[in-house]
Amino acid sequence: MMERQIDSDIRELKELILTMGGCVEKAIEEATQALILREPKRFALVFEQEAKINELHIRVDDTCVRIIAKQGPLAADLRWVIASIKINTDLERMGDQAVNIAHNGARYLTEPPLKPLIDLPRMAQQVREMVRGCLDAFVRKDLALAEQVISKDDVVDGYKNEIFDELRNYMIKDPLSVERALNLILIARNLERLGDHSTNIAEDVIYALTGRDIRHGHVSLDQIHAELHSHTQGKKVTP
Amino acid sequence: MMERQIDSDIRELKELILTMGGCVEKAIEEATQALILREPKRFALVFEQEAKINELHIRVDDTCVRIIAKQGPLAADLRWVIASIKINTDLERMGDQAVNIAHNGARYLTEPPLKPLIDLPRMAQQVREMVRGCLDAFVRKDLALAEQVISKDDVVDGYKNEIFDELRNYMIKDPLSVERALNLILIARNLERLGDHSTNIAEDVIYALTGRDIRHGHVSLDQIHAELHSHTQGKKVTP
Repeated sequence: MMERQIDSDIRELKELILTMGGCVEKAIEEATQALILREPKRFALVFEQEAKINELHIRVDDTCVRIIAKQGPLAADLRWVIASIKINTDLERMGDQAVNIAHNGARYLTEPPLKPLIDLPRMAQQVREMVRGCLDAFVRKDLALAEQVISKDDVVDGYKNEIFDELRNYMIKDPLSVERALNLILIARNLERLGDHSTNIAEDVIYALTGRDIRHGHVSLDQIHAELHSHTQGKKVTP
Repeated sequence: MMERQIDSDIRELKELILTMGGCVEKAIEEATQALILREPKRFALVFEQEAKINELHIRVDDTCVRIIAKQGPLAADLRWVIASIKINTDLERMGDQAVNIAHNGARYLTEPPLKPLIDLPRMAQQVREMVRGCLDAFVRKDLALAEQVISKDDVVDGYKNEIFDELRNYMIKDPLSVERALNLILIARNLERLGDHSTNIAEDVIYALTGRDIRHGHVSLDQIHAELHSHTQGKKVTP
């Protein structure tokens, strides 16, 4: 059976996005490891990845526009292309956040360490799992995994709040810690935003898979499950 | 002459986005004025606007998908629809930033004021001009205005850096100021991000108008001007 042109176009689009996602993962890894291991030279690798991400950002957009104009995709195909446009935007901004971590981290590393890095390495680990999870959900069309990513966002926010509280206390107790604590607070913010972007991507994957928009409580995941379930039983579902 | 269906669809789309933009402007106005005038009750109005923004966010996305599926837009029409998808995302996140300002502002107002609000009101004013500017550029298809918005982003970043420096000094000198200074730093960050989103929207308007992607220095504004100029002289331009 001949492959449809639209299928090979969408496969190409997916490969571009996965390459871009790989660069984003690498950028976050270098930024956080440079900070944790106190190896400022590694920050340079973040900027290398960002340049690649920006190049891919433009290629993905061009590819999406070309597919819509040339193939006139419908239904599920169109949803994947629209989701790709949005995922592309999030990935590009995730590259920016990795760069922000590199900037804030480079400033932090000019001074001796604040006692421990608190929960920051653990928060970074959670965020990296969210990033990996939303990309895997995208490539495998895995609804359950996309949902897992979304549920992790609260864990990341919890870490951020704890880190904020602890660093605020440092600053109150010791004026000499203000500069460093502030840099770490900004890094916790950057990580939180990376988690938010991963959540956005997971939501776009769910939209592409189901045609349902779960943002703003418009449809709940429970509703989607109920519908998918009744679909498999051959019942008709009103959207 | 009959209006084309695509023209009336795109007009409807524009009106939705403008309504949404109006809600975003109102949310930012209420959030910043509540802070500046110390009227915490006004923060509730921010949440009201956010609910409307979230509702419109879904409607705009639905409208874009419907136009692409039903009308198969090409060239400039397709660029406006793609730009609308992206602008929609930015506007929704601007609503989130207004809500963040409300949260941080509400915490700030539980204590007596830190001497002056420093340059924060001026920064807020600049950001509100950027927001208004990018929406006006969108509705009027005004390339020059979109460029003005982008050029203001440096001014906003400059304010943010000054505010950061000043607040950092407060925190070092007076431990009692840490909590409040930190809230103001986060608000300056929220305002900075509102400026970033306005820049993104202005870039999307330029893309829709010219078909050129000015992000990441892919094409410079000077190049676009040179091309538009040679177009008006009837010369052929290779894209």
